[in-house]
Amino acid sequence: MADLSPPTHTEADCIFCKIVARELPAFVLEEDEHTLAFMDINPGTRGHALVIPRNHSQDLLTVPEADLTATVLAAQRLAGRMKERLGCDGVNLLNCCGADAWQTVFHLHIHVIPRYRDDPDRDPLRLPWIPAPGDMDDIKAVAQELTA
Amino acid sequence: MADLSPPTHTEADCIFCKIVARELPAFVLEEDEHTLAFMDINPGTRGHALVIPRNHSQDLLTVPEADLTATVLAAQRLAGRMKERLGCDGVNLLNCCGADAWQTVFHLHIHVIPRYRDDPDRDPLRLPWIPAPGDMDDIKAVAQELTA
Repeated sequence: MADLSPPTHTEADCIFCKIVARELPAFVLEEDEHTLAFMDINPGTRGHALVIPRNHSQDLLTVPEADLTATVLAAQRLAGRMKERLGCDGVNLLNCCGADAWQTVFHLHIHVIPRYRDDPDRDPLRLPWIPAPGDMDDIKAVAQELTA
Repeated sequence: MADLSPPTHTEADCIFCKIVARELPAFVLEEDEHTLAFMDINPGTRGHALVIPRNHSQDLLTVPEADLTATVLAAQRLAGRMKERLGCDGVNLLNCCGADAWQTVFHLHIHVIPRYRDDPDRDPLRLPWIPAPGDMDDIKAVAQELTA
C-alpha cells in the first residue's frame, strides 16, 4: 500500500470514514490517494465489493468531481480484476443516491458486482424491472421537464 | 447545443452511435463535447435516462478513462436536474457490463434512474437482492483472490 495522507474531509459517525482510517475492519482490495475498495459484507453475488472516495461525501449529488471520477476509475480497474481473477462473465456498477434509491450508508459508494452466467449459487440477481417500451407521450413530456 | 465535432470512434451498426450522429431519433436531454444524455424508451421508472460517451466503446472494460469520467460527470449533472425538475426522492446510477450483467446495447452507457418514494405508478423498482450478511470465510477468500 502507498503511504497515504489522511482524507481532508471526514465525518465522525461514518462507518466508511472509519474503514478509511482503519478504525473498523474491512477486507481491503485496493487503495490509492483518492479511493478505497473493499468487500461488501452483505454481498448480492460472490465478490460484490464497494469503492469509495477517501474523503467523506454524503452522496452523488454532493461529491466533488475529482472524488467521483477517481472513484469510477477505481471501480473500472476493480471490474477488470474481477474478470481476470474471479472468472465472472459480466459486472454491474450501481450507485444508490438517497434512502429511496436503497442508499443505507451515507458516504458515497459504487457497488461493483460480478455476474456469473447460469450460476445461481454465486449469482442470484435478476434485473429489477422488465424492459418494455414506455408511453412515448409521457417520455416526451419528461424530456421537456428536464430540458425546458 | 454547442457546435460539436464528430466523435473520433464510431461503429457502423451501433444504434447509440446513430443517435449521436442524429441518424436515429431520441429525446436528447444534454450534450457536451464528450457525452450525450437521452431518454431510455424502455424506462424502469418515470424519467429513466441514459448517458453515453459520444465516442464508441463497447463497455466499461474498454472505455478510455476520459470518456468514462466525462460520462459519470454528465450522469451526476443529470441526477441533480432530475431532483430539481422531476421531484424525485433519489437516483440510481447503473452500468451493465456484458450480456450477463443485462447489457443489451454494446456502446457503454450509464442508466440514470430517478426514484419516487411510495409511488408505485412512477417507481415499480425493488432492489434485486435482499441485503443480508454473507459467509465471512468466503468473503475473505474472494478478497484474497482479488488481491493475491
